[in-house]
Amino acid sequence: MTMERMGSESAVIAITMGDAAGIGPEIIAKAFRDHAQETRGCFVVGDVDVMRRGAQAVAGSVPLPVAVIEDVAHIPNVGSMPPRCVPVLPVVKFDSLPAYGAVSATAGRAAADCVTWAARAAMKGEVAAIVTAPLHKEALAAAGVGFPGHTELLQHEAAMALGKPARDVPVRMMLANDELRTVLVSIHMSLRDAIDAVTIDNVLETIRIAQVSLGRALGHAPRLAVAGLNPHAGESGLFGREEIEAIVPAIAVARAEGIDASGPFAPDTVFMRARQGEFDAVIAMYHDQGLIPVKYLGVEKGVNVTLGLPLVRTSPDHGTAFDIAGTGRADAASLVEAIRVARLLSAT
Amino acid sequence: MTMERMGSESAVIAITMGDAAGIGPEIIAKAFRDHAQETRGCFVVGDVDVMRRGAQAVAGSVPLPVAVIEDVAHIPNVGSMPPRCVPVLPVVKFDSLPAYGAVSATAGRAAADCVTWAARAAMKGEVAAIVTAPLHKEALAAAGVGFPGHTELLQHEAAMALGKPARDVPVRMMLANDELRTVLVSIHMSLRDAIDAVTIDNVLETIRIAQVSLGRALGHAPRLAVAGLNPHAGESGLFGREEIEAIVPAIAVARAEGIDASGPFAPDTVFMRARQGEFDAVIAMYHDQGLIPVKYLGVEKGVNVTLGLPLVRTSPDHGTAFDIAGTGRADAASLVEAIRVARLLSAT
Repeated sequence: MTMERMGSESAVIAITMGDAAGIGPEIIAKAFRDHAQETRGCFVVGDVDVMRRGAQAVAGSVPLPVAVIEDVAHIPNVGSMPPRCVPVLPVVKFDSLPAYGAVSATAGRAAADCVTWAARAAMKGEVAAIVTAPLHKEALAAAGVGFPGHTELLQHEAAMALGKPARDVPVRMMLANDELRTVLVSIHMSLRDAIDAVTIDNVLETIRIAQVSLGRALGHAPRLAVAGLNPHAGESGLFGREEIEAIVPAIAVARAEGIDASGPFAPDTVFMRARQGEFDAVIAMYHDQGLIPVKYLGVEKGVNVTLGLPLVRTSPDHGTAFDIAGTGRADAASLVEAIRVARLLSAT
Repeated sequence: MTMERMGSESAVIAITMGDAAGIGPEIIAKAFRDHAQETRGCFVVGDVDVMRRGAQAVAGSVPLPVAVIEDVAHIPNVGSMPPRCVPVLPVVKFDSLPAYGAVSATAGRAAADCVTWAARAAMKGEVAAIVTAPLHKEALAAAGVGFPGHTELLQHEAAMALGKPARDVPVRMMLANDELRTVLVSIHMSLRDAIDAVTIDNVLETIRIAQVSLGRALGHAPRLAVAGLNPHAGESGLFGREEIEAIVPAIAVARAEGIDASGPFAPDTVFMRARQGEFDAVIAMYHDQGLIPVKYLGVEKGVNVTLGLPLVRTSPDHGTAFDIAGTGRADAASLVEAIRVARLLSAT
């Protein structure tokens, strides 16, 4: 295969295997098994034996082979791999396989190392996008990884690559399905802390990140609805003043910059309105405000996108599901959707 | 018509006309026009001219007559009224009709008086249930009514009737549609105050009220899911301690009382789980947590039920819609649904 030929292949996507004690490996295997079209040009960043075990868990009567990518130089060729075959780049190596469903420092460390490798590869342009299978927070902590999840880990890697402190690489989580996109001002903190995080700067930064990242993905400037924080968006200060003191000023600055942001809207109906087509995305003031509506119709199709990074990263909208890991029962739909969205975002 | 005959009629439901400057009168008229079956045995508590104007707004080519109920003694007879006729008990009387879409102290006062009359009638057993068309908070305030909305007004009336202070008549708002029921720990307060309201007592009271009221409506003990307050229900104290300090103890007491309450569950998936049939209702920790999912699929079918009162009260899940009042465009679906639910709740 010549470089010419390689160049004509579609862009390559790295899928990190996630926590080896969870459902990551088996949903990845299932995606390769059932979605040859979507997984073409994808490869797994992980451990070969872990992926073999995952493939066995979902293989059924027809075997699902794992193909070892011996050298990073071969990555551009993954697009020409045969279908129903799981290409794995062995970035990590387990001495023994971790038990399913148990927190393990080894699995936490390996999972983090795969993400780090993929992030660096994406920033070097070796892969077009990364799709991350679920991590387990406690396993990360047990391994001494200093980040609670993917977002913080990726933000750290991006900051290092850019030679900036992490706080100067603001990122935001977007949750999206076929009907609704929400971009969150804050994620994993108490609701009390999330209220404190509703500042002019944080809301404005979220609007700006949504404008740039979503604009790139949609091919046009997005129509952004900004949710209020309080019931009825505070009813002019009657039920809280965050709308008056932070959200309204942030929207005003954004609009002065030419961004099509409007609001603050009553939180209990703005997501319904966006679903009905009035807006391209809703800026949500806290984790559950945005995630309750995205997940309400089922988590199978939800995709998590990290906006603001110098790389494209998507992930399925669920966790490691330790309770069913290894049974082959886990649904790969959200992962497949994450691959689809990653391709869409990296093609533009 | 003899008393025998009256007794065989189904129970009578009072519909309060709401703010005369809003869509209340016309959606009531529309309900009588299009839903003869559902509105049979219902009558309007309001002003005759206001209801005539509302009927005209939706009459089209076929007139929609308003029938004046001359005496409260005739109320039991409304079930035998002809269909496509709007029976009105003139509890209030406007000197001149208020303009559509404008805040008016006169309209606020009249709307409140209708609710007061209906609440007292319900507690005396003269009507089986009340269904309330939307009030306008600013109109109530302009009229000097000391309550921000229906709930507080009804709570006050109930407390007076029971000879207790209002705080000893705890009520809770339930929002329900065909797919989901949520009972709210708090409603119209800032999110910050709502967090403070997540106490053992308030959560437990909400669970108990849901158990009694919903149990009566369903005919069996409800399966109650209790949502957490923080993302992921706090992840064992990592993102907030309200779950540990208030919600878990409240659930423990409720379970010790034999109530089928469980949780706290991650807020972002508990509503999806309830929708899929795992629970009969979700106890939501604050206004938007419960209302976002109920309204997400559209407000047309949402019904608001006040639980804990010594009377049955339901209402449509929308406001006065001043912007379209008088045009006849407002959708009566939520009101019709509120009538249906009121009948269901008062039949048991």
